[in-house]
Amino acid sequence: MPGLMQDWSLTCNRLLDHAARNHPTREIVSRSVEGPIHRTTYAQMRQRALRLAKRLDAYGVKEGDRVATLAWNTWRHMETWYGLLGIGAIYHTINPRLFPDQIAWIINHAGDRLLFVDLTFLPIVEKIWPQLSTIEQVIVLTDAEHMPETTFPAVAYESWLAEADDDFAWKALDENAAAGMCYTSGTTGNPKGVVYSHRSNVLHAMAAAVPDMLGLAARDRVMPVVPLFHANGWSLAFSCPLSGAGMVMPGPRMDGEAIWELLDSEKVTLTAAVPTVWLALLQYLEKTGKTLPHLERVVIGGSACPRAITKAFETTYDVRVIHAWGMTEMSPLGTACSLKPEVAGLDGEALLDLQEKQGHTPFTVEMKITDDDGVERPWDGRTFGRLKVRGPAVSAAYYKEDSSDLLDPEGYFDTGDVAHIDENGYMQITDRAKDVIKSGGEWISTIDLENLALDHPDVAEAAVIGVAHPKWDERPLLVVVPREGHTPNEADILAYFEGRVAKWWVPNAVIFVEEIPHTATGKIRKTTLREQFADFSFPQ
Amino acid sequence: MPGLMQDWSLTCNRLLDHAARNHPTREIVSRSVEGPIHRTTYAQMRQRALRLAKRLDAYGVKEGDRVATLAWNTWRHMETWYGLLGIGAIYHTINPRLFPDQIAWIINHAGDRLLFVDLTFLPIVEKIWPQLSTIEQVIVLTDAEHMPETTFPAVAYESWLAEADDDFAWKALDENAAAGMCYTSGTTGNPKGVVYSHRSNVLHAMAAAVPDMLGLAARDRVMPVVPLFHANGWSLAFSCPLSGAGMVMPGPRMDGEAIWELLDSEKVTLTAAVPTVWLALLQYLEKTGKTLPHLERVVIGGSACPRAITKAFETTYDVRVIHAWGMTEMSPLGTACSLKPEVAGLDGEALLDLQEKQGHTPFTVEMKITDDDGVERPWDGRTFGRLKVRGPAVSAAYYKEDSSDLLDPEGYFDTGDVAHIDENGYMQITDRAKDVIKSGGEWISTIDLENLALDHPDVAEAAVIGVAHPKWDERPLLVVVPREGHTPNEADILAYFEGRVAKWWVPNAVIFVEEIPHTATGKIRKTTLREQFADFSFPQ
Ligand SMILES: Nc1ncnc2c1ncn2[C@@H]1O[C@H](COP(=O)(O)O)[C@@H](O)[C@H]1O
Repeated sequence: MPGLMQDWSLTCNRLLDHAARNHPTREIVSRSVEGPIHRTTYAQMRQRALRLAKRLDAYGVKEGDRVATLAWNTWRHMETWYGLLGIGAIYHTINPRLFPDQIAWIINHAGDRLLFVDLTFLPIVEKIWPQLSTIEQVIVLTDAEHMPETTFPAVAYESWLAEADDDFAWKALDENAAAGMCYTSGTTGNPKGVVYSHRSNVLHAMAAAVPDMLGLAARDRVMPVVPLFHANGWSLAFSCPLSGAGMVMPGPRMDGEAIWELLDSEKVTLTAAVPTVWLALLQYLEKTGKTLPHLERVVIGGSACPRAITKAFETTYDVRVIHAWGMTEMSPLGTACSLKPEVAGLDGEALLDLQEKQGHTPFTVEMKITDDDGVERPWDGRTFGRLKVRGPAVSAAYYKEDSSDLLDPEGYFDTGDVAHIDENGYMQITDRAKDVIKSGGEWISTIDLENLALDHPDVAEAAVIGVAHPKWDERPLLVVVPREGHTPNEADILAYFEGRVAKWWVPNAVIFVEEIPHTATGKIRKTTLREQFADFSFPQ
Repeated sequence: MPGLMQDWSLTCNRLLDHAARNHPTREIVSRSVEGPIHRTTYAQMRQRALRLAKRLDAYGVKEGDRVATLAWNTWRHMETWYGLLGIGAIYHTINPRLFPDQIAWIINHAGDRLLFVDLTFLPIVEKIWPQLSTIEQVIVLTDAEHMPETTFPAVAYESWLAEADDDFAWKALDENAAAGMCYTSGTTGNPKGVVYSHRSNVLHAMAAAVPDMLGLAARDRVMPVVPLFHANGWSLAFSCPLSGAGMVMPGPRMDGEAIWELLDSEKVTLTAAVPTVWLALLQYLEKTGKTLPHLERVVIGGSACPRAITKAFETTYDVRVIHAWGMTEMSPLGTACSLKPEVAGLDGEALLDLQEKQGHTPFTVEMKITDDDGVERPWDGRTFGRLKVRGPAVSAAYYKEDSSDLLDPEGYFDTGDVAHIDENGYMQITDRAKDVIKSGGEWISTIDLENLALDHPDVAEAAVIGVAHPKWDERPLLVVVPREGHTPNEADILAYFEGRVAKWWVPNAVIFVEEIPHTATGKIRKTTLREQFADFSFPQ
């Protein structure tokens, strides 16, 4: 027996319709790529998105077609998403920080027909144009006045848009139709295409807006410093219209000073980005003595938020930190560290301890930790396991990839992270699955050991890897770059671990090096380290 | 091209699963029908609901079967819902305040197989038992110790439940399957059965939890004074587990003293009910000098919230009032009056003016006002029209009724209310559609005229109805019960309207009566009044 409720599909453009109708004058303020601050509203954005949808339709873009964007956070980028969504085409955001060859590979793999690009990234397009096999037309997100010469077929967005009017209606779509794409680059193999649906985006935005997650209200002014091209833009292009929150878009300038200027002049109440952005802002504040009188909450994720950042925001600037965890495959929100009643009374160092955790899930995200055989491990705040997730906004497959093995028998996706979860559901990432050390059947967190080593006064940088061991399978090897002018010795360093971690976690050996290898984004390249020490054998 | 996200159906039991997993020890506190306060948790409730599901399954209850409940808000009533939902059966809540014949009619029309009933309502069952044609078994929501003799086949809930264990898994269900039923009695014809789906309940709970609606967080302790049998229990049995909020259930005692006791001892942060409940509470507070130190927000809906109630909560007791509007056919939330930035600065009388409005919609509720021909009217805060709504938790049809005409060509449901909506999306109900007066093509609100008449010192009660008029189709006739010892005259009363409403709104005549007819629930019976004055003709 079916319910007798209305058939109302969860399509993304309903979010913009809602905002335009109920919050028509709420502003979207952007620092434009051309320089000046630009102001628009949800009502105006909807009109422009309708116009774009009509223009795309006239061009011949069809439902299911992929269209690439290489762009900063601005009103034009956001309305491009909605214009595409409104005719059933797929916004495909590309991270301009990838190597040009990777960008070309991704565009070709997705089969993108059009490319919307900011002025900033034209040099990339110049470089890869000969390799692009599917792009028919490049649309530069600017006006005729700012349009430069290009060696490839390109038009200025504003001129192109002006060729259509806004007398258009969104196409009727199946809520399960593809809406967006974002490639994620693992450490091995080619990048993998995550494909969001209208339904997953809408449900995700609804789940993210509740008080214990982002808590978005119409009175908020939200600055997504996290780019739209990073993990579905953390969904803010959807959850802000859903809640009628105003938006402040930083455009191309994400340095401390530029961010502070907008936070201050636009009275931003909530902002979101990765830790490095906040490090830059905090340095700017310290240097200039500026403060954050309007900012209420800052969402920090993408990598673990250092305690010092949390402490500075909370105690020096009176801003609540929401540590969050997610991934491209999760649309991206997995957890947020808001305060349940069990921990609401914490303060000082105890509160900071809690805030090092990545937090708890919203409704629609299910989470478990398992051993290597898929057996669930307990939520006791100590036992760690492979972190697996399930939900309507979690990937079931990658684009054009055999994904038959992607989910476990219960339908969970393996995040590749290793974590423990406490009795109250607070999860903490302890490692990447490929880095964790398996010693005698038990797991050792390399991140914990590295953080501890870094506390030692003689250590500048530290990495821990697992090395084969005849009795224990694997044991931890600590690789240390000594602090300039210090000459630590092994016994000294190892003594430092005593009493600070379980005995069997203490590394079996320490090696001193001049340099540790890094990836392009500054993370330790553990694969290289493991190769380097593959033949290492522990002293018996 | 489909999205590549997981297939994760929106079924109600996932809400309880979420709460049990992530908020296992959060309490559900009830005043039991037997008397004592009872405490349980989400984790325990889930175990008991699983047990009930297994017991129902063993009994032979099948997917799509309807099961009636005649019960107060307690943990047992709530776990009954989840037990039924978990095997795809349908909770059918019945309002015990209906006439016994209506209750019998509704149960037979729904074809309910079982009836879960509180001790309080056994006399009703005794009375209607001979009329019930589909009920096989009555389950009394109590234990063996409190189980009375009955003249019909009945078992004590706890004994019946004890026959199963909790080793059970929720059945896999289509999210569009029916989940719940609630009959709504219009003024004409038989009651009509609204049928909620799993999907509509889940989406509704997600939409209701956001900050600008109920704003539910895990740290909240929510007391639904509104009964589960009233309009889907305002969805609190779903939105509380979704947010991990604790619950406080008032059971059978909803007088001012009993409500205050629980608000105070259980440190309730948010509560919800119709205005009459709050009137009783406020009278109790005034009489006793008690205060509301823990309560933060009170949701008031079901009928227009009198300004005096709002004022008392806001100014005397420092409790935020959330005026809300909805209906059984909307699951039920339609609007809530939270503060958008455009009105965030209001205070004093201006704020109270705003709070007389029923508020704005959440995402998933679309709203419009139209004239009688279905042409949309503007959102200017003055022009009023028939209020129509659309969304995934709005009725498309009634159970076993020809509903082909229920929705307009755009898919909107006519609420039967007349309202205006301002530029910021704040809606205010001005009348019921069947009461509004059509004068020369323009509409006149009878509620506005009645409220104004009540301000006149000589008026005890007032009702306005439309009476046929040769030139204007209809004109307002004001019916007045004079205040004891006062003898107002027509000219005097009419003079009072001058300058207070538009000239053409002023009633054409006043009639003085000793009594105005009322319905069982105390509302003015306008149908009777209209019959009474059908032959009235205005002086020329
Ligand atoms: N708050 C966080 N703490 C630690 N790691 C994080 C956090 N947020 C994201 N990550 C990591 O980033 C990965 C997702 O990367 P991406 O899909 O590129 O956003 C996750 O699987 C985690 O390993």
